[in-house]
Amino acid sequence: MSTVAMSKLGPSPVTEYLRRVVEDLRPLTDGTVNNSVPELAAADENIVGIAVATVDGALYQAGDTKLEFCIQSISKAFTYAQALTDRGPEGVFEKIDVEPSGDAFNEISLQPETGRPANPMINAGAIAATSLVRNTSHGTRMERILRLHSRCAGRQLRINKNIQSQEHKAGDRNRALGWLLASRGIIEGDPTGALEDYFGQCSIMLNCVDLARMGATLAAGGRNPVTGERVLDPEVVSDVLSVMSTCGMYDDAGRWAIRVGLPAKSGVSGGVVTVLPGQLAVAVFSPPLDRHGNSVRGVAACERLTKDLDLHFARTERKGHSTVRSEYTLAEAPSLVRRNEAATEVLDAHGEDARIIELQGDLRFAGAETAVRTVRDAARRSSYVLVDIRQVDDMARFVLPMLSRTAEQIEKTGHHMVLVAEKSGENTRNLEHPLTVFATRAEALTWAEDQILERFGGPECTPDKVHSTRSELLSTLGEEDVERIRSRTESVDWKAGTTVLRTGQKFNGVYMVTSGNVEVSRRSPQGDRVELEVIGPGMSFGEIALGTNMRHLVSFTALTDVSARRLSPEAIQGIEEEDPRLALRWWRAVSQQALLRIEERWRQQAGETHTVD
Amino acid sequence: MSTVAMSKLGPSPVTEYLRRVVEDLRPLTDGTVNNSVPELAAADENIVGIAVATVDGALYQAGDTKLEFCIQSISKAFTYAQALTDRGPEGVFEKIDVEPSGDAFNEISLQPETGRPANPMINAGAIAATSLVRNTSHGTRMERILRLHSRCAGRQLRINKNIQSQEHKAGDRNRALGWLLASRGIIEGDPTGALEDYFGQCSIMLNCVDLARMGATLAAGGRNPVTGERVLDPEVVSDVLSVMSTCGMYDDAGRWAIRVGLPAKSGVSGGVVTVLPGQLAVAVFSPPLDRHGNSVRGVAACERLTKDLDLHFARTERKGHSTVRSEYTLAEAPSLVRRNEAATEVLDAHGEDARIIELQGDLRFAGAETAVRTVRDAARRSSYVLVDIRQVDDMARFVLPMLSRTAEQIEKTGHHMVLVAEKSGENTRNLEHPLTVFATRAEALTWAEDQILERFGGPECTPDKVHSTRSELLSTLGEEDVERIRSRTESVDWKAGTTVLRTGQKFNGVYMVTSGNVEVSRRSPQGDRVELEVIGPGMSFGEIALGTNMRHLVSFTALTDVSARRLSPEAIQGIEEEDPRLALRWWRAVSQQALLRIEERWRQQAGETHTVD
Repeated sequence: MSTVAMSKLGPSPVTEYLRRVVEDLRPLTDGTVNNSVPELAAADENIVGIAVATVDGALYQAGDTKLEFCIQSISKAFTYAQALTDRGPEGVFEKIDVEPSGDAFNEISLQPETGRPANPMINAGAIAATSLVRNTSHGTRMERILRLHSRCAGRQLRINKNIQSQEHKAGDRNRALGWLLASRGIIEGDPTGALEDYFGQCSIMLNCVDLARMGATLAAGGRNPVTGERVLDPEVVSDVLSVMSTCGMYDDAGRWAIRVGLPAKSGVSGGVVTVLPGQLAVAVFSPPLDRHGNSVRGVAACERLTKDLDLHFARTERKGHSTVRSEYTLAEAPSLVRRNEAATEVLDAHGEDARIIELQGDLRFAGAETAVRTVRDAARRSSYVLVDIRQVDDMARFVLPMLSRTAEQIEKTGHHMVLVAEKSGENTRNLEHPLTVFATRAEALTWAEDQILERFGGPECTPDKVHSTRSELLSTLGEEDVERIRSRTESVDWKAGTTVLRTGQKFNGVYMVTSGNVEVSRRSPQGDRVELEVIGPGMSFGEIALGTNMRHLVSFTALTDVSARRLSPEAIQGIEEEDPRLALRWWRAVSQQALLRIEERWRQQAGETHTVD
Repeated sequence: MSTVAMSKLGPSPVTEYLRRVVEDLRPLTDGTVNNSVPELAAADENIVGIAVATVDGALYQAGDTKLEFCIQSISKAFTYAQALTDRGPEGVFEKIDVEPSGDAFNEISLQPETGRPANPMINAGAIAATSLVRNTSHGTRMERILRLHSRCAGRQLRINKNIQSQEHKAGDRNRALGWLLASRGIIEGDPTGALEDYFGQCSIMLNCVDLARMGATLAAGGRNPVTGERVLDPEVVSDVLSVMSTCGMYDDAGRWAIRVGLPAKSGVSGGVVTVLPGQLAVAVFSPPLDRHGNSVRGVAACERLTKDLDLHFARTERKGHSTVRSEYTLAEAPSLVRRNEAATEVLDAHGEDARIIELQGDLRFAGAETAVRTVRDAARRSSYVLVDIRQVDDMARFVLPMLSRTAEQIEKTGHHMVLVAEKSGENTRNLEHPLTVFATRAEALTWAEDQILERFGGPECTPDKVHSTRSELLSTLGEEDVERIRSRTESVDWKAGTTVLRTGQKFNGVYMVTSGNVEVSRRSPQGDRVELEVIGPGMSFGEIALGTNMRHLVSFTALTDVSARRLSPEAIQGIEEEDPRLALRWWRAVSQQALLRIEERWRQQAGETHTVD
């Protein structure tokens, strides 16, 4: 088998796409580089870099993504997050409102009544947020702000002291804001320290990849997708993203909401980060700014990506439609338990009376609503509804209580709903109406079949003991033939848990079970043990190896204490030699049983596979 | 089987939940009823109703949802949608900006430079939007505005003339805004007509259910989920929802973004509608208002629902993780073609060289990125990658080009990627690098197997013709036995397309195929024809009915011209009577072949099912 080295495949189409976007953006020469401090004024107008980081740690980049720049106002989002962490949402809200102001970022205006800055994304609000970050035994305010930025980026970032001192020199207007905040009691005492830390946080250096990773940490609800570290609480991240969505792009927030429709934050050095919650972040760096103070190419890149990649929040016309992965009846997918003829007849007649619903994807409200509706509908048509949630990725808190309530309602009508779930664990235990949970679909199906057999079948459907002369394998033979074959068998017994026959073991006879249950299993290519069938009284096993070079390709384990009659290879050979006509009928009986089972498999397959050709 | 009447199940848990919310909200007696016009001032303070409408047409309600109220400012969102439809986004943007103003809804202020209202959700912007709706041959401006509201609600709404005249009487401030807009050229000519229609649209009567349906129409991208009518273009809906997200809740937009995080619009009569794009809308009606002019219980209800049901836009921490439904190799899931021993040996050795990737859910960017990454990874390990997209619900425009580019890159390494898709239709045809598409996974698997056999196997793997003496069924018999059985067979031929044996037909012999292919199929319970196997030269069919009361439970169709040798029931009986020892060996051979096939099925099953017990 040939394998190909990674490089041979060439760059990912995502990378190729980003490269095209960068090339398309380079000729866009509108805007001017910010000149508030000398370091910013010196920036190269031609720079453009884009990085996309996903919540599962993937990274794509194109253009000048390795160049470092200072974070500037983008730090406002992260420092606000630290303030929320340190003071709680209400503690921060007392000092800083969250309303879009419609004003420019450096406007000197506070709310007349309260003295609060309109939001934490304008300078006044950001200085106030900085002042709310605590000095603790784990570090000074400045150290803790820098550490948060570093943990979000996934590497140690540093402050450019040169830029910080330039910010300090050019900081008179911010100083005015600081003292204004102090005059209204928003900052307690001298604001000088908070101002210095504000200049410091604006001077944190990072590149486009760092910024994308920081955004991806927000997209992932506060857990850094690369380091796996929980950096921020989901509640804090939710608040920060909400404020970014209304106030993140200075006084261009409304236009941004229409064109991009995602929370974002920009800085005057030319960086922009945009977050698609639960999925990814896009970071762009390009110094020339528009009249709002946002990177011209950054805005253009985000608009382009949103349009090309359908990222806008309002453009998800369909969702939750695939919650129900499939729905089918017991008739279409019976359990793994091999049933005798009487039981099969009952189950055939009641095959519509149990219904399996497989759910998948994220079960949030719309998905849960669809699920509940489907389950209720199923419970109107079938007595037993088996809800398999093992393929569900993410389940909101309210889903299990809602399913439990549904089960309770169904119970009252005399019908039943059970769950198939990976762990029959804590979640399902603390419910008002506890749910019955099975670990595998096979177990749940067996339960439903047993219920149906108990209600509608006689004792012959689930016999405890079946005499070997009544074995299915011998059912097409005359009484005399049965007696002659039986006379050549011998009695065997196994304790529960015994491995009766192991994969690879040599054929050593046909076993007709008279009491107890035997499980047939095989290792999957992944090494898992896969249950294939359960054999009960009146059924036989071991004959499979007759067709396979006389070695068993599956294992047999006694699930309970088991008794059986064994027809050894020597006994079969004896019959063949001594009584060829009996041997003929014996082999014809084996053929018929085997062919019947192939037929049964086919019938199931036609039920399971809904593919139309 | 017992069935239960719908009513017996009781209300849906969703309804029960909404009832609890309504009961919890009733004691909340903050706020005051708006008294701008007498009809509003007369409203009952105790009223509270909630309705939830989903994009697939489901509806849940609790409380006073049948009471009609006048729409007031909620009409602003829909009239803006009509203006966008009539004038295009840029035509409207020229006249009305989209920035949150931070001001109250009735503020008399226009942007100094342009004279534009800040956004269409404050009165000035809404009056301007009304003026932009066209009078056409299909109706006057007022008729068209009312019709849009009605189509979104899914029933004919009406204007309360009494309220309209009260609005007219109390409308001096709005009249001032109208003339101010005229003075800046935002409204061309006399604004009186536009003002009258503005008063009219505010007086449209509706109930909570109507409002929820209107919101659900927006959630569904402009298609009414109940009537199925396309009422608005998705682009228009996207713009409207964006403006609602930043400006919909008057000057409480920022706080709303944090607490609810969804686009919404409220009105002074006490209505609020909140939209979760792609999923649902929540409508609440309760007259008492807070100081921003939003319904106190409406805001509380939306905050409660958002929190309980995890609806906030920023609270989706995981998404797109289930894009890859499953991934497995040819070894784990071979095609339906029954292969001879030589071919099976080759395919066993190269079972890892073809890989199937099943995708599911919505393929938007994050999903597509995961898909491309998975496919590239698979192409490094296997020569043939089969991508099954039939379970994908919604696929963004860029996904197919991206998959096509991926296929092109893989092709260059000497490996291959093909698609399994419902329709090998238009979408896949206009790609730069056309994709190979199969309609079923079985066909794609057969193709991959044929490729592998061509590369690694000899001509004996896919023989055109196999002499009946070499039939697999006879492979365990000695040469003399084979000749004696063959002497009892007769030659049969079928043209391509012929139904050889139909389900339910009586057993009429065992057929050993010497050339051509026969398809085994069966109707699913849904009535679809399901392909179960393809039988080629050297294989046999018809013996299955030996085990099933002598009637065929599957159908056999000649896929090509087919030649075979038939061993009739009479011939078998003849052998049994005349030569029991030969009959014994014949039946043993049939047993072995049948048991071998059960074993093969088990081996596959262990590969397919990854359930660990």
